[in-house]
Amino acid sequence: MPSTTSPTALSSTESVALSGVAVVCVATLIRTFDGEGEPLVASLALSGLAFAASYAMIRWLGPTFLKAGLKGRDMSKVNNSHYIPECMGAICAVVYLLTIIIFIPFPFYKDIVVATSGGGNRDVVMNVEFVQQGRLLHKFPHSKLASFLSAIISLQSITLLGIGDDLFDIRWRHKFFIPAFASIPLLVIYFVDFGVTSIVLPTFLQPYIGRELLDLGILYYGYMAAFSIFSPNSINILAGINGIEVSQSIVIALLLVLNDALYLLTPYPHPATDSHLFSLYFLLPFLGVSFALLFHNWYPARVFVGDTYCYFAGMVFVVVSILGHFSKTLILLLVPQIFNFIYSLPQLSHVLPCPRHRLPHFSARSGLLEPSVTKWEKDKQPRPIIAQGLRLLAKFKLLRIKEDEEGRIEETSNFTILNLWLVWRGPMREDRLAVEITTMQILVGLFGLFVRHKLALLIFREDNLSIKSPV
Amino acid sequence: MPSTTSPTALSSTESVALSGVAVVCVATLIRTFDGEGEPLVASLALSGLAFAASYAMIRWLGPTFLKAGLKGRDMSKVNNSHYIPECMGAICAVVYLLTIIIFIPFPFYKDIVVATSGGGNRDVVMNVEFVQQGRLLHKFPHSKLASFLSAIISLQSITLLGIGDDLFDIRWRHKFFIPAFASIPLLVIYFVDFGVTSIVLPTFLQPYIGRELLDLGILYYGYMAAFSIFSPNSINILAGINGIEVSQSIVIALLLVLNDALYLLTPYPHPATDSHLFSLYFLLPFLGVSFALLFHNWYPARVFVGDTYCYFAGMVFVVVSILGHFSKTLILLLVPQIFNFIYSLPQLSHVLPCPRHRLPHFSARSGLLEPSVTKWEKDKQPRPIIAQGLRLLAKFKLLRIKEDEEGRIEETSNFTILNLWLVWRGPMREDRLAVEITTMQILVGLFGLFVRHKLALLIFREDNLSIKSPV
Repeated sequence: MPSTTSPTALSSTESVALSGVAVVCVATLIRTFDGEGEPLVASLALSGLAFAASYAMIRWLGPTFLKAGLKGRDMSKVNNSHYIPECMGAICAVVYLLTIIIFIPFPFYKDIVVATSGGGNRDVVMNVEFVQQGRLLHKFPHSKLASFLSAIISLQSITLLGIGDDLFDIRWRHKFFIPAFASIPLLVIYFVDFGVTSIVLPTFLQPYIGRELLDLGILYYGYMAAFSIFSPNSINILAGINGIEVSQSIVIALLLVLNDALYLLTPYPHPATDSHLFSLYFLLPFLGVSFALLFHNWYPARVFVGDTYCYFAGMVFVVVSILGHFSKTLILLLVPQIFNFIYSLPQLSHVLPCPRHRLPHFSARSGLLEPSVTKWEKDKQPRPIIAQGLRLLAKFKLLRIKEDEEGRIEETSNFTILNLWLVWRGPMREDRLAVEITTMQILVGLFGLFVRHKLALLIFREDNLSIKSPV
Repeated sequence: MPSTTSPTALSSTESVALSGVAVVCVATLIRTFDGEGEPLVASLALSGLAFAASYAMIRWLGPTFLKAGLKGRDMSKVNNSHYIPECMGAICAVVYLLTIIIFIPFPFYKDIVVATSGGGNRDVVMNVEFVQQGRLLHKFPHSKLASFLSAIISLQSITLLGIGDDLFDIRWRHKFFIPAFASIPLLVIYFVDFGVTSIVLPTFLQPYIGRELLDLGILYYGYMAAFSIFSPNSINILAGINGIEVSQSIVIALLLVLNDALYLLTPYPHPATDSHLFSLYFLLPFLGVSFALLFHNWYPARVFVGDTYCYFAGMVFVVVSILGHFSKTLILLLVPQIFNFIYSLPQLSHVLPCPRHRLPHFSARSGLLEPSVTKWEKDKQPRPIIAQGLRLLAKFKLLRIKEDEEGRIEETSNFTILNLWLVWRGPMREDRLAVEITTMQILVGLFGLFVRHKLALLIFREDNLSIKSPV
């Protein structure tokens, strides 16, 4: 089966296509130097290059990863005896980081000529020009540079820690806090450079509190930290079938891009334009490397993505939404992940037994996936109150229970959204499950954006579609 | 031999000592909040904590590294059959990065309260206070934040790439360029934020060029890139005996700290004060984690440091000296490394055969190190001109040659400073060689600093000991 082994050479079609992409992107990049150096065009071109580079490197470096012991077997296949490379998301992360670093001059370059009296002091400024032109494609204010760099530092931190996790196989209760460490740079630089800890109150609350803005102070940092921990982990636990980690990340990124576009396409300059340009600059190369990974990770997978990718993806969403001040919007897009997390809690918190792997069960006979189950021995039944809860869930079709004739619970399906979907929709092939879950993610996300932009005006005074008013 | 196995628990003495260090440091750190939040004191306290943390983690994580296949055998020991953890410098790098990130608020925190109209815009600034007090312990101007962050990004990049190198065993000709990639963030942000590409000309050249400053433009970036490639690699090739990678790095760091202190202790405010404070903030935690590593890597080594540490150390020196604009000073401190590199060139460039390992040869009989040699077969003699060169080097005591009766070269010592030292001083034990090379590094470095500060006034108009004059 050539498609499931790991050929390391690109086919001639692939080589031609990738070279074509690269040439077009380089040409576009060079053209941006002629004009104003439009950062958004440059970002698109660099994202294309990032796609081509990760696509080729994922292919070429497969054997290197296998040799270094970064490998795994795909248990949901009939022929599951051979290893395929694991942790290939690390390649995407490194390519992404290099891309975003090379991109820095495009939005930030100022026409500044400075001489120094030695020791690196900027005391002899000979000529300063600071030009801001256009709206959509204008240059960033220099003060945004620190935010930009802090985002890069957080993403590099999560990559380092993610690779550590993939290498050392850290225990679940410890790895849960890996994103917390990676959020430290974000929070620290937010504190130093930005420090906005106020939130706009919903209009119906304003009369009671007596103001429009509420300063949450240190609570706001707690909120951001919790958010940084949740987002990467929530993507990491919605996993277990080929392609699902990448496809859900791509959907969330595309929906965020759509949301950004809504702000950039308003007929008047919106005050949040910069935040949403910022977001696009981080999301476009992410989409580039993610599509390259999806090509290799989609059913039947030729590589695994590793925890590194899930953490990294989650952290990309965190940095753009925190630094862009639209974390509530991201929460709306993470609804399937939030559902999956809450639904998983009974097992994650060990109220119910939690097997090491909860991915759907592959039936070698039918070639289809079925819900995986936790078995209950006759003499180790759940406590009555828990058994009642399980039966209640089953009644609402949120669980499949198998009972023996005497009403003892024999097995319950595992608490993940993938298993639940299989309970609802019946056994299906792995790629079909991935397509259906991804479609669900798209629909829920689009609805979330609709809520955000149409219904939010009911409880907040302003939105991107309202006119700008001084707050 | 309990001292050469890897016990993972800290002894009770160690636990008490480390806890003591940690308590003192935390107390000091808390006290800085009472006053002005003196950044230099905070940096010292955090460096102590970094020492304690890396010391404990190096010990605890040994088995984890062994299990993940990051292990090596120490060939310069009688009992060389057991593995010890490799790549432990990665722990130091990660602890260092976390420390320096947590440190950011101390020099940079401004008393600024900002409200936002939504979308993260800083359009409603309610209260801005910008206080600069004192001289030695004053807060940094905010514009330095970008430099600080770019340094962190470069160090994170070299850590990521270094770990990749340790994992995948990259070929020498490729790994040589790893630091080049890591220098990209430094150069990019230097370009965006700083852009000083002028150098002060020596006074005797000024009449000919007609000015004091010469703008090197793009050449300056080439110089910085070359420097970034050289420094980490030069430390990486002065390696091969227990402790030498760490001890040379510690010596260079200490000499840089001494140099910084010279600028801070002048009786008047020196224009380069900020650059040298900046340098101290990066060097002190580096010393903290390096001493923790040295404890474990010193003869007889219980852990290996890995390429990660060497790259990381070299990059720390690069970022402080480039961003502080004192790269010439660093070159003076790297003289032994530069000598070792130039001396190695005949083998590195494959003019002479280059064996995979050139570390000194361990004589199991005497327990001493001897120069390792390259053998020349009778029918594969070097070309006459090269043979002449080798004999010339031997005449100047820069090589040991063994010839047979007919004047054919049988073997030549390998071209590294460690082997050369053994040629000069005779066989010695591994730790003695490390001590002697380290002492040599100290003496050469002190002489370099003397040259820098006493003799530089002959060719440059200003120095930290001259009075400040407008340029």
